[in-house]
Amino acid sequence: MIIDCHGHFTTEPEALHDFRRRQIAAHAEGRPGPDPESLSIDDETLRACVEGAQIAAQRQRGTDLTLFSPRAAGMAHHVGDAAVSLAWTHVCNDLIHRICTLFPKNFVGVCQLPQSPGVEPAACVDELVRCVERLGFVGCNINPDPTGGFWTTPPLTDRWWYPLWEAMAALDVPGMIHVSASCNACFHTTGSHYINGDTTAFMQVLEGDLFRDFPTLKFVIPHGGGAVPYHWGRYRGLAQDMGRGPLEDLLLNNVFFDTCVYHALGIELLTRVVPADNILFASEMIGAVRGIDPRTGHHYDDTRRYIDGLATLSAADRHKIFEGNARRVYGRLNDRLRVLGIGDGPPA
Amino acid sequence: MIIDCHGHFTTEPEALHDFRRRQIAAHAEGRPGPDPESLSIDDETLRACVEGAQIAAQRQRGTDLTLFSPRAAGMAHHVGDAAVSLAWTHVCNDLIHRICTLFPKNFVGVCQLPQSPGVEPAACVDELVRCVERLGFVGCNINPDPTGGFWTTPPLTDRWWYPLWEAMAALDVPGMIHVSASCNACFHTTGSHYINGDTTAFMQVLEGDLFRDFPTLKFVIPHGGGAVPYHWGRYRGLAQDMGRGPLEDLLLNNVFFDTCVYHALGIELLTRVVPADNILFASEMIGAVRGIDPRTGHHYDDTRRYIDGLATLSAADRHKIFEGNARRVYGRLNDRLRVLGIGDGPPA
Repeated sequence: MIIDCHGHFTTEPEALHDFRRRQIAAHAEGRPGPDPESLSIDDETLRACVEGAQIAAQRQRGTDLTLFSPRAAGMAHHVGDAAVSLAWTHVCNDLIHRICTLFPKNFVGVCQLPQSPGVEPAACVDELVRCVERLGFVGCNINPDPTGGFWTTPPLTDRWWYPLWEAMAALDVPGMIHVSASCNACFHTTGSHYINGDTTAFMQVLEGDLFRDFPTLKFVIPHGGGAVPYHWGRYRGLAQDMGRGPLEDLLLNNVFFDTCVYHALGIELLTRVVPADNILFASEMIGAVRGIDPRTGHHYDDTRRYIDGLATLSAADRHKIFEGNARRVYGRLNDRLRVLGIGDGPPA
Repeated sequence: MIIDCHGHFTTEPEALHDFRRRQIAAHAEGRPGPDPESLSIDDETLRACVEGAQIAAQRQRGTDLTLFSPRAAGMAHHVGDAAVSLAWTHVCNDLIHRICTLFPKNFVGVCQLPQSPGVEPAACVDELVRCVERLGFVGCNINPDPTGGFWTTPPLTDRWWYPLWEAMAALDVPGMIHVSASCNACFHTTGSHYINGDTTAFMQVLEGDLFRDFPTLKFVIPHGGGAVPYHWGRYRGLAQDMGRGPLEDLLLNNVFFDTCVYHALGIELLTRVVPADNILFASEMIGAVRGIDPRTGHHYDDTRRYIDGLATLSAADRHKIFEGNARRVYGRLNDRLRVLGIGDGPPA
């Protein structure tokens, strides 16, 4: 079984975009937002959104299950205020739940959170609990910069975040640290803001003592960990210079990297630098890069091919990356799959 | 000859730090800053600062010449105002000039610029001209975020920057795109802010048409290009999706990466992904990471060893990386070395 831990609902029906536009316009004019009941998307429409897209890609690429969350750039926590974010988050998470219910063998839910600039992450706990306990979601996306590129929120190691970490630890759900759209002209959303967010989050947890306080808390850093594996020597050296001991001992019980790196040499570096226990298969499809690489004839984001092409990766490590680690890091996933009657084997 | 294109004066005498403290205190209290004449550092002190440090490392590592600039984190353009930045920049660049004069075989100057948040880069032209024409400097460091981590300055492709690009093109000096200290709690200076600055700058120029307007302008992106080579497939795919054609054609006449990547696998990736014509040897010593890697027994930042260890690199490519590219990208370097009677051979 191949589990893709990082997929977004990026093929939304036009009705959802229209709802969002109405919501933003209402907020701008000081009116109440649109009633979520006014958003009418039938099952047939929803099926059509993913059947020819994410599900077709799963079939073509030979992957099985995607941990599925709302469009990352669409979270746009900087838009409106906390009430706008909450209403939008409910709508987006409910749609993910419907897709997961329509296609239980293809998708398991991961939620967005109703973050908002300046609002304490404690305000996200109710929605997290709802998604996990009532909707069967197994993880959440955490935006380390709800301002969309101005970075005025405290670092992830600050006590500001602790109520959210407490809830995640209690629920046994990991968080993918994933920024949303950039509204800062300096940062291209998928070209620099996403990657910078990953690198920034890693360095924040390297500097802090978060995992001493939350030893079971788990973060997945997407996009192959940003710049981190490429600069692994830099991070090993910084940890050492700071007297924090070997980098691997410091972080690798709690921090995991996905494989959203869109060329073979990058994936090769990732797997040579980071222990196999800390790498989770992912493609981000259908996501940031949609084209076909003329050098290979395949989609840039068909990351399974890069891993299949690694001659030196052992079968055991391959299994960890494709399946075992996801079952271990997403602590509720095995139970969820058992409830659904799918792939009930334990992790390798 | 081995030219290190990225070295900073990070072993300053205490008198310089004291001058800076007095300058900041004066600004905070609304008093005029200290007279630069009050900063008294004799040649013996200055020699001692670098003899046992950068020069000893050159000797130990078998490198020859360092393109030497003030401490990058020390630029701290966010501190004070434009007048504070200008006075500080004069002092720092003058010290670099004195060191280059004391050790002309070891150092050639690269200047910092008197940037300040909200102040147009045109204000930097006089100091650039002074450093290049009167002090014999061959390049400059450009801070794409003078705010120190809040990124409220227009992107490098904005016309805001054009007077500086015009001056650099006219003088034939490249710029290293290098942020300074972070004053944003989200960003560790050398662990995330530096690397993010590199990635951000690359994506800015990928999105814009800067090099159509300035076909001879050259940027060196330090720290191995931030996250870029690791995500080369992502950037190739983004350029393609944006209809901008092959990434290599788009940027590689104007954008160069240094080799400040502190482990062998990272350097290997860099040299396998980026054409040899676009890689310049650098170590950043004595810089961000000062320790010895227990796995190798050598300094993390002894980057020459990683390049020496690349079995597949041809002699011609090795020469480009160690020397030829620096002579080509830093257009005034050959003349400067000829004036000094050093290494007057043309680029390979």
